[in-house]
Amino acid sequence: MAALLRPRLLVSRLFQPLCWAEGGEAAAAGGEAPCRSQRLLVQGGLISPAAPGCYHYLPAAVRALEKLVALVDGAMRAAGGQKLSMPCLSAAEAWRASGRWERMGAELFRLADRHGKGYCLAPTHEEAVTELLAAQSNLSYRQLPLRLYQVTRKFRDEPKPRLGLLRGREFHMKDMYTFDASAEAARRSYELVCDAYGRLFRALGLRVVRVQADAGAIGGTVSHEFQLPAEVGEDRLALCPAGHFAANAETISAEQAACPTCGEPLTRTRGIEVGHTFYLGTKYSSVFNATFCTAENKLQLAEMGCYGLGVTRILAAAVEVLSTEDSIRWPSLIAPYQVCFIPPKKGSREEKGAALLERLYDDVAEAAPQLAGDLVLDDRTQLTIGKRLKDADRLGYPYVIIAGKKACGDPAVFEVWSQNAGEVTFLTREGVIDLLSKVRVS
Amino acid sequence: MAALLRPRLLVSRLFQPLCWAEGGEAAAAGGEAPCRSQRLLVQGGLISPAAPGCYHYLPAAVRALEKLVALVDGAMRAAGGQKLSMPCLSAAEAWRASGRWERMGAELFRLADRHGKGYCLAPTHEEAVTELLAAQSNLSYRQLPLRLYQVTRKFRDEPKPRLGLLRGREFHMKDMYTFDASAEAARRSYELVCDAYGRLFRALGLRVVRVQADAGAIGGTVSHEFQLPAEVGEDRLALCPAGHFAANAETISAEQAACPTCGEPLTRTRGIEVGHTFYLGTKYSSVFNATFCTAENKLQLAEMGCYGLGVTRILAAAVEVLSTEDSIRWPSLIAPYQVCFIPPKKGSREEKGAALLERLYDDVAEAAPQLAGDLVLDDRTQLTIGKRLKDADRLGYPYVIIAGKKACGDPAVFEVWSQNAGEVTFLTREGVIDLLSKVRVS
Repeated sequence: MAALLRPRLLVSRLFQPLCWAEGGEAAAAGGEAPCRSQRLLVQGGLISPAAPGCYHYLPAAVRALEKLVALVDGAMRAAGGQKLSMPCLSAAEAWRASGRWERMGAELFRLADRHGKGYCLAPTHEEAVTELLAAQSNLSYRQLPLRLYQVTRKFRDEPKPRLGLLRGREFHMKDMYTFDASAEAARRSYELVCDAYGRLFRALGLRVVRVQADAGAIGGTVSHEFQLPAEVGEDRLALCPAGHFAANAETISAEQAACPTCGEPLTRTRGIEVGHTFYLGTKYSSVFNATFCTAENKLQLAEMGCYGLGVTRILAAAVEVLSTEDSIRWPSLIAPYQVCFIPPKKGSREEKGAALLERLYDDVAEAAPQLAGDLVLDDRTQLTIGKRLKDADRLGYPYVIIAGKKACGDPAVFEVWSQNAGEVTFLTREGVIDLLSKVRVS
Repeated sequence: MAALLRPRLLVSRLFQPLCWAEGGEAAAAGGEAPCRSQRLLVQGGLISPAAPGCYHYLPAAVRALEKLVALVDGAMRAAGGQKLSMPCLSAAEAWRASGRWERMGAELFRLADRHGKGYCLAPTHEEAVTELLAAQSNLSYRQLPLRLYQVTRKFRDEPKPRLGLLRGREFHMKDMYTFDASAEAARRSYELVCDAYGRLFRALGLRVVRVQADAGAIGGTVSHEFQLPAEVGEDRLALCPAGHFAANAETISAEQAACPTCGEPLTRTRGIEVGHTFYLGTKYSSVFNATFCTAENKLQLAEMGCYGLGVTRILAAAVEVLSTEDSIRWPSLIAPYQVCFIPPKKGSREEKGAALLERLYDDVAEAAPQLAGDLVLDDRTQLTIGKRLKDADRLGYPYVIIAGKKACGDPAVFEVWSQNAGEVTFLTREGVIDLLSKVRVS
């Protein structure tokens, strides 16, 4: 019923400005060439540059982003995560206490309020979440593990923001913080979250590799990155082709050419870091005195881990590796819309197929309620089918249903472009409904 | 099936620290007494002060917030809204162009990046969205009206942040911006959005009044506030008891005592401003040259409106007016969880009711899949039912189901507290399932 009552979504009404200057800010500023995802997302009217490293997310991108966040929420819930939300404004005191006020240097956006009190725009929340836990004076070992996460905007004053959403100054990140009663329990939390990351990337159809990493400014003793191999990536990876070993190249010596386990020659490649995990031990809990009461009624410092996912970076990285030179391709689960229906051109001989296609749209909406809001009709019938198919490629619908010549046959047959499979098939009304009823959305 | 596979939510596992210092930051700082919503939300472990006017939203509050945002999304979609997302970091140039860089004074959080370029943390996005539209060079009258909105964090350096979420420095706001081809069309957009606000507040069960308002720093010629009458409110209202007239008192003379329409004496009351609408005309489109192409192929400035809803303020305002002195009450649609199941105390004579209650939990999860994630079992059976019922009141479940003495009867009968109706009834298993199957959630 809800699907029936919802009016049809029309391309002519969508705010998806396809006319932004090709290439976006980098080209405009005479800088380096934009990467594929940046170019496609800007040209397709999905994002628009606002300031260096800061983008407007336009309606189609917001849909993809919200679908991705829903998937991330599911993955974090499955790993025992509870969602909270901490402020962007983060008081300087806590950062001074951890030593990061100095150590983060120019990467931290800093400001003062009207009373002269110092703040930064948080790039990450180890200090904040540890203070939050420390304020709970009677935390018991029975309440552990605690796995708290959020999906919020983060800020980093990159010296040279580039590659669109891949390295911005304001971006969306999922950050989880775990608190455990012992080092062993903390390692279990660590593996649980890493496994959840692995499942998430598989669900997205992204071949992400977990590599050993340097803990950097966050600190701690064990750290892994989740890297999506891609030419445009800024990290260098060394991978065992048999899967026995994977490392960020900066963690091994330049001379190491063979896998330490099997002796096979290591493959060198580049990667986009889409996730990063850290076992922190008591590095932060000791600073803020985040303790819990043990079974023996003694106070003990919590063992911590932290776990980041670059949410907007994953969005762009997926487009980067899945798209062709001029057509956006999304992981099916997070495509902004699943299906575009293209009726014939006005005045063409096939024009009577238009009514059939509109009926098909309504039939699919009824038969596949999970697709409510995911079906779009390209009503710009003053344009040829070819022109509209090209525009559909600039948005990246997994399915495009066209009413061409055969829609006037008996029975009517529609042209179905399954973009992620790279197939074109011809299906009757029942065939289209059957195909689309099986589509899963996030 | 999904509901069955989901493990039961246990109170002992929820991060809802009930032990924060009573009264929160204001009392701690020796300042004024906190208002009811601030006190209840802090004591109940729903929010926690991070810095003046900045709060952590803890898991239960995040659930309420996400439900409210889903309702707001629905209301905005129904008004033809398309959701986008603009950066918090907003370059100084645009604010200088509109004159607000100076005019906003100390309320604007300002900062410079590593290159010395000036930014503010946007409290609102008239400049940004108008620039975005102006960049679309070939906008046609056929694409209008455009109604773009977002739900994001906003920042305002309040001289004296107070009353918890009612007047913070970092808060969530829904802001919509409309672009129309004529003043008449813009007024239609204006009424459409105001009507959507009215429906939203009715769905929440909040008696919000639309009053004539001053346009203030935003500017424009017509403006209304949506005010929730409440003693703690910072605005003074003058209302006609028959509903013919409603104004923010600052827009009328102090002497005006009678309704200008019907002559009835005006009632003076206080209100919390939960929404604000502005008809802007071409105030911003003229600054940034946001034009569209008319049917006569001429360029013309777009007629604008802007429309705010204080999302986190609505959350707190609802708690403020619906709660009792020591029990949180939510609008049912946005309560963090709908139902709390309280089994008997361990070792009590009624203990065998525990298994029946757990089965009831599972039965409800199966019969009412819309409640998946909204059912909580208070497994802290070391505590009395009374103590747990008190804790349930501090979170604000619309329904509390207790297995007391009668749960051991034949047939088993459960004690059902319908908190928003203020009723206690005794129902069999079937009665409980029947009652809860009808609960609507956002």
